[in-house]
Amino acid sequence: DAPIALITGPCQLESLDHARMMADRISTACAPTGTRFIFKASYDKANRSSIGTRRGLGIEAGLEILGRIREEFDCPVLTDVHLPDHCARAAEVCDVLQIPAFLSRQTDLLLAAGETGAAVNVKKGQFLAPWDMANVAAKIESTGNARILLCERGTSFGYNTLVSDFRALPIMARTGWPVVFDATHSVQQPGGIGATSGGQREFAPVLATAACAIGVAALFIETHQDPDRAPSDGPNMIPVDRMEPLIARLRAFDDLAKGRTGAQT
Amino acid sequence: DAPIALITGPCQLESLDHARMMADRISTACAPTGTRFIFKASYDKANRSSIGTRRGLGIEAGLEILGRIREEFDCPVLTDVHLPDHCARAAEVCDVLQIPAFLSRQTDLLLAAGETGAAVNVKKGQFLAPWDMANVAAKIESTGNARILLCERGTSFGYNTLVSDFRALPIMARTGWPVVFDATHSVQQPGGIGATSGGQREFAPVLATAACAIGVAALFIETHQDPDRAPSDGPNMIPVDRMEPLIARLRAFDDLAKGRTGAQT
Amino acid sequence: DAPIALITGPCQLESLDHARMMADRISTACAPTGTRFIFKASYDKANRSSIGTRRGLGIEAGLEILGRIREEFDCPVLTDVHLPDHCARAAEVCDVLQIPAFLSRQTDLLLAAGETGAAVNVKKGQFLAPWDMANVAAKIESTGNARILLCERGTSFGYNTLVSDFRALPIMARTGWPVVFDATHSVQQPGGIGATSGGQREFAPVLATAACAIGVAALFIETHQDPDRAPSDGPNMIPVDRMEPLIARLRAFDDLAKGRTGAQT
Amino acid sequence: DAPIALITGPCQLESLDHARMMADRISTACAPTGTRFIFKASYDKANRSSIGTRRGLGIEAGLEILGRIREEFDCPVLTDVHLPDHCARAAEVCDVLQIPAFLSRQTDLLLAAGETGAAVNVKKGQFLAPWDMANVAAKIESTGNARILLCERGTSFGYNTLVSDFRALPIMARTGWPVVFDATHSVQQPGGIGATSGGQREFAPVLATAACAIGVAALFIETHQDPDRAPSDGPNMIPVDRMEPLIARLRAFDDLAKGRTGAQT
Repeated sequence: DAPIALITGPCQLESLDHARMMADRISTACAPTGTRFIFKASYDKANRSSIGTRRGLGIEAGLEILGRIREEFDCPVLTDVHLPDHCARAAEVCDVLQIPAFLSRQTDLLLAAGETGAAVNVKKGQFLAPWDMANVAAKIESTGNARILLCERGTSFGYNTLVSDFRALPIMARTGWPVVFDATHSVQQPGGIGATSGGQREFAPVLATAACAIGVAALFIETHQDPDRAPSDGPNMIPVDRMEPLIARLRAFDDLAKGRTGAQT
Repeated sequence: DAPIALITGPCQLESLDHARMMADRISTACAPTGTRFIFKASYDKANRSSIGTRRGLGIEAGLEILGRIREEFDCPVLTDVHLPDHCARAAEVCDVLQIPAFLSRQTDLLLAAGETGAAVNVKKGQFLAPWDMANVAAKIESTGNARILLCERGTSFGYNTLVSDFRALPIMARTGWPVVFDATHSVQQPGGIGATSGGQREFAPVLATAACAIGVAALFIETHQDPDRAPSDGPNMIPVDRMEPLIARLRAFDDLAKGRTGAQT
Repeated sequence: DAPIALITGPCQLESLDHARMMADRISTACAPTGTRFIFKASYDKANRSSIGTRRGLGIEAGLEILGRIREEFDCPVLTDVHLPDHCARAAEVCDVLQIPAFLSRQTDLLLAAGETGAAVNVKKGQFLAPWDMANVAAKIESTGNARILLCERGTSFGYNTLVSDFRALPIMARTGWPVVFDATHSVQQPGGIGATSGGQREFAPVLATAACAIGVAALFIETHQDPDRAPSDGPNMIPVDRMEPLIARLRAFDDLAKGRTGAQT
Repeated sequence: DAPIALITGPCQLESLDHARMMADRISTACAPTGTRFIFKASYDKANRSSIGTRRGLGIEAGLEILGRIREEFDCPVLTDVHLPDHCARAAEVCDVLQIPAFLSRQTDLLLAAGETGAAVNVKKGQFLAPWDMANVAAKIESTGNARILLCERGTSFGYNTLVSDFRALPIMARTGWPVVFDATHSVQQPGGIGATSGGQREFAPVLATAACAIGVAALFIETHQDPDRAPSDGPNMIPVDRMEPLIARLRAFDDLAKGRTGAQT
């Protein structure tokens, strides 16, 4: 088993300079442990809680930036897609297309993403059971695409709250596809503070540690230099200056889980 | 308060003949109580549980049929839309555009539907709290559209199960928009039988009765002449030959709730 | 089907004078519709959220008061029991023993209550499925007791929140035992305001109406002359001066559900 | 931080010989890692799903056996108590009294257990939020008892299912009391197979690993030499012959979490 990869970056693209700064700081945070990272950022927040919030730079400006990051930092890049006809365009630049959780049952989007040949990371819908993801993966498989990732990001638990059911990790792994754990969205409180979503940033490292101990292929962790001023998902993002020790700690649990240390496994 | 309207029809369009037969039987079932109905059918089931199930006739063939039903039966028609660029085309034919529950936070779809000027019926996402629907409605309101309906259709409750929280009806009514209760999807068991969704048809009339007693503007009830052989949602549809007595019973509760009888209200 | 009975009274006994005043006002509220009521009050709140809250008068003083109410108002009385060895004593005075929801799986308590020969009203645990209540009832049936009531009072839904699943009413009715709906505890927010439970009093009449429309044998509604100053459960109790019109409205729905009016059922 | 302790044993006492055999095998399984264990077994299953299942040996015979195990194996012993007047008697033999989850709000039981001076392990009710346990602990604290353990064992999630919310571990730790994770009851499916509870034994080690990675004071794991024939809780118990490698693996994660290895923490 390979060491965990990290899907990380700011929730939304703000500017080329911002993306560069973030990629640079992430790169620095990953270096001591040699952790591979996939730079993640959204060009469009297509399902914000309310209309009066920032959506992002749009597909053309966004892909332009992601392409620059990819080239300058020699790292794979990921973005989420919301409409079938965005997939081909996004795949020209991105190594991984991500299907948002709310859209995880939209057949046309899954097929369009699959048909690009890019890797596809599907977030498990908050309304789905872990075993339902086999049907989701099968939609992508039907395109001949064999680069699928299944990502746990929390399940609806009462109102405005998610819960992480860690049984989901081994259950989704039964599909044979690599499993990702999204630590920062799992602690989101959707719609929890009126017109935007709240979050419990302090629990993201707790849940990420648990996921590494159980064993995952990758972690998804959004980060920002100043989460409280980020245009979206601030309440659950990890400050980028805390990423290096967090990654080191997660790697230690990943090493132990995957038998790469002298531990009594 | 006007008597309840009924949004009803088969889950998916099968053919013009089938739609005609269903509209005819629905019309007959509604006649004794003078119940107004909106004919509902989908031209595309865009989020089926799995890839190997029937999706429908497609937008052009579907709208052609809906247009004929509208004309022949002189009734409003409703269909659900899944992509922003379908909205304008669908609104040429349909009186009401419906936003599927999974898509109830997709800003572009809500705006595109709102901009058509057609009435918009938004199903509350299984992952949303009732109070979150105020933000959803506000997205449509931002287009100047003032013909919005908010529809309760069940909330995620553990895996593969929905629960109907009837507090949602008065909470959503606080927005000022008419509230609809979807009795047949509320008893769905999403993904509950492997590659398709199960359902508990026997409880749809129970929940519909409760909704009428509390007070709603409309009920959504899918129906079919032979639900067990319907191409989708069979387990929760009501056989069309049971619709007339069901409507009569629901109307009695609606009359009582709205003070149209001699009851001690 | 007999008209609904009402299980009603203050959450906890405060004094003989208070109980008399409440019984008198309840009696007056029930008179116009001829609604039978069972006077309910607790002599001990044995599972308060926190230690620093009032528990009640204790079993001897409490039963003394309940006995007086029973005699003076010629009405059946109900109290909840928490320990097996309280059952026989409570049954000397009370017509109905009630098993609290948290204790609905405690075999010894169910058997002890059953053995008294008094009627037994079991609240469904917040952690139980409706079909689990058949096993609960079977424990009481094993004592030869055939006067069992099963009471829905909400199911855990995320943290500090209950949801009323109205499918539970027909499911529990399959046992053959009369079903009760507890409208005031169903809107409780357990532990919701720190050291005590919150509640959403405004929704109790909504849910009670739904239950009557579906059809129940009895409603459980706690009431108080000044809920905001009641020693327990204030946030969800109905002010006693609103009971008469509420009962009249509920009776109208009950009459319709049970076919006692000229409605088209 | 001390290494994790293990609360372990068969769900219910079967006989002195059986208890001895189990204690011997547990002792052997713990020896290689020097893991301290507390022998757990119940003398009475007071809240079985249904009446027709075995309850156990009763308090006198049960305590007699636990006393012998304590002496012969020089280990602390734990049993659960269900009635206030059992606490003093049980504390004559047992080092730890355990409050069952359903009874975690019963004030008299918590006080009676606290007053014995024995350590008290409270299982968090399936219907409680993690922060509600501060009020539960305060009831015991009010007796002057300062040997309290708070135990996570799953939260109601839909019907017949529990979910483990790992945020509960750090939240309950804020009380200052040691936190225990019950790995085998957390995978229970209460009432899930008709008249008894089902379970998902295969996930108990997964969740136990996650808990160790997050950091707990102790794990609770029920075990049996032949779980499929155990008189209760078979579907979720771990076969005793798999305990030694499981303990070794859990200890490795515990060591890493608590900084006892050379890992990069």
